[in-house]
Amino acid sequence: MKVYNFAAGPAMLPVEVMQKAQQEFSAYQDSGSGIMELSHRGKYFKPVIERAVANVRQLMKLDDDQEVIFVQGGASMQFAMIPMNLLNGGTADYVDTGVWSNKAAKEARLFGTVNVAASSRETKYDHIPARSEWKLTPGAAYMHITSNNTIAGTQYQQLPTAPAGVPLIADMSSDIMSRVFDAGKFDLIYAGAQKNLGPSGLALVIIRKSLAERTSDRVPTMLRYSTYIDEGSMFNTPPTFGIYMLALVTDYFIARGGVAALEEVNNAKAAELYDFLDSSSFFKSTVAKADRSRMNVVFRTPTDELDAEFIAEAKNNGLMELKGHRLVGGCRASIYNAMPIEGVRALIEFMKKFETAHK
Amino acid sequence: MKVYNFAAGPAMLPVEVMQKAQQEFSAYQDSGSGIMELSHRGKYFKPVIERAVANVRQLMKLDDDQEVIFVQGGASMQFAMIPMNLLNGGTADYVDTGVWSNKAAKEARLFGTVNVAASSRETKYDHIPARSEWKLTPGAAYMHITSNNTIAGTQYQQLPTAPAGVPLIADMSSDIMSRVFDAGKFDLIYAGAQKNLGPSGLALVIIRKSLAERTSDRVPTMLRYSTYIDEGSMFNTPPTFGIYMLALVTDYFIARGGVAALEEVNNAKAAELYDFLDSSSFFKSTVAKADRSRMNVVFRTPTDELDAEFIAEAKNNGLMELKGHRLVGGCRASIYNAMPIEGVRALIEFMKKFETAHK
Repeated sequence: MKVYNFAAGPAMLPVEVMQKAQQEFSAYQDSGSGIMELSHRGKYFKPVIERAVANVRQLMKLDDDQEVIFVQGGASMQFAMIPMNLLNGGTADYVDTGVWSNKAAKEARLFGTVNVAASSRETKYDHIPARSEWKLTPGAAYMHITSNNTIAGTQYQQLPTAPAGVPLIADMSSDIMSRVFDAGKFDLIYAGAQKNLGPSGLALVIIRKSLAERTSDRVPTMLRYSTYIDEGSMFNTPPTFGIYMLALVTDYFIARGGVAALEEVNNAKAAELYDFLDSSSFFKSTVAKADRSRMNVVFRTPTDELDAEFIAEAKNNGLMELKGHRLVGGCRASIYNAMPIEGVRALIEFMKKFETAHK
Repeated sequence: MKVYNFAAGPAMLPVEVMQKAQQEFSAYQDSGSGIMELSHRGKYFKPVIERAVANVRQLMKLDDDQEVIFVQGGASMQFAMIPMNLLNGGTADYVDTGVWSNKAAKEARLFGTVNVAASSRETKYDHIPARSEWKLTPGAAYMHITSNNTIAGTQYQQLPTAPAGVPLIADMSSDIMSRVFDAGKFDLIYAGAQKNLGPSGLALVIIRKSLAERTSDRVPTMLRYSTYIDEGSMFNTPPTFGIYMLALVTDYFIARGGVAALEEVNNAKAAELYDFLDSSSFFKSTVAKADRSRMNVVFRTPTDELDAEFIAEAKNNGLMELKGHRLVGGCRASIYNAMPIEGVRALIEFMKKFETAHK
């Protein structure tokens, strides 16, 4: 049975990438060892991390002032590192569009004042507050957004800009490299790798060199952005296997035609699934139409019991991990870059059958 | 050609473990996905992390108050987390036996006062200062040692105790599970995984629950030990593949007969190599005999040029990564748990030939 894995993260990786990594797992090139057994400063790993960085630069069209670094601890560690490096007792604006935005703001309160510029918490994060309603702080230390909300299933269709002089920071954990946007407008972009880029245990951070100079001397070495910039992400041993996987995944993205080509497929996948949801009298999307995520499609059947039955039967048909996040329940199909359109079509076919059988 | 990898870390993993991980890389059990593609909260990964914890408890004979947690950032992140959680402006004693001890102490100075209780820095860390000469602080917040010094090639033969009431903390990155000792005497043990336990990107931390209660509310969530204890190392997505590898490695240790059996082989490996070094008029160990590491055997030929020639020729003979650390030069054979005695014997045979040809 063909299996499609709709997990929200850790998530499926491109089949071609998994095959290549498996094939060379124990013997990388002519080394006689697996890449994870080799020194991070040796001749085999160095080209890997250099390629990973170059691939990110190319795919996201970064400018010369933007540095690509790899940090451990996932996006959650970034929730702390950002204010630790950049807040220094000042005020930062956070746009609260989901559980993860909220967690990011919580950590920032340890290091300064957080102004929640806008929030959709009252309506269970079912939409992105309109930009015109945000209450921003003049001269804020930075403005923080979450570009895609994995749990709620919402996404900024247009990425916002920040007021002049205010650094713009975005958590793009669940939609990085899934669509074309002007990365040059951002001062710091971060993403846990385990949705679109590779395995868990690795976060990609893209930061302006000038911004990283703000950090106080009181911040520990491993928590300073400048350490990663100055040492090429190798102040200490980096997560070498994760970086290797990210290099393979981004190689694959480039071979597929880059972010524009990925976006085209992502748009088609999301359109087919939302079109089906909108045509169904059984399944429904619970998210404001204008803000629907193209990465995490959240939906429900008429009852919690049918949700559970749907998830269980889907699994028996090779459609895995369709359960919604434990905080919100319901169903969720995560359809990141690695999910082929065939997977989405298999899901729709199964949903049609399930609907016919149960309505 | 049979290849033996003497890298200091990332280092070789047991051949059987690499084979098993390769075999099930793309299809873990009946999931149809690789373990790295599966949810950390799902039915496949949960038994993996539980087994990893149970294996560590069993191999190290931990008591009920000791918690096993997995943290990202390697030992270097622990250099910061330890004082951040436990120092609170007090004084901590650090025994300075190598580059890594020194780096650990440096981070602690950001959070309180560091008393260097003893140091062998003046003699290039060629020995461990005698316990009788340590100048400890009465009522110190904790006492910190590095059990094995990867770069200098020294190791405590007898692990010290701390004064009554002073928590004992050890960085065991390079000799954890390589020898039997009473782990119950320690309040916090930490180790980057990439030498004896698995791939880089993962640190094992063993901490007394009571000690973790000291942490101030001002410490960010991801940097608090209590977060990892309370959430079973899954406050956010852990490095699932690294934990899976650690579970396989520790399965293998248990199958081999546990730490006592590993120690027996480690002792034999080190004895054969040091006996050869002591019998040679060409190669020599630069480390005080009483403090020689059984994990990292540091040695030299008569000249830097011959060191380089030896390292290059060894490599041509399948004996990889024998270069000393970039800070000290010379040669180094790291012979962790995963290195079979056959590898050490192959190295000695080659050294004999090289000596005959060059002296």
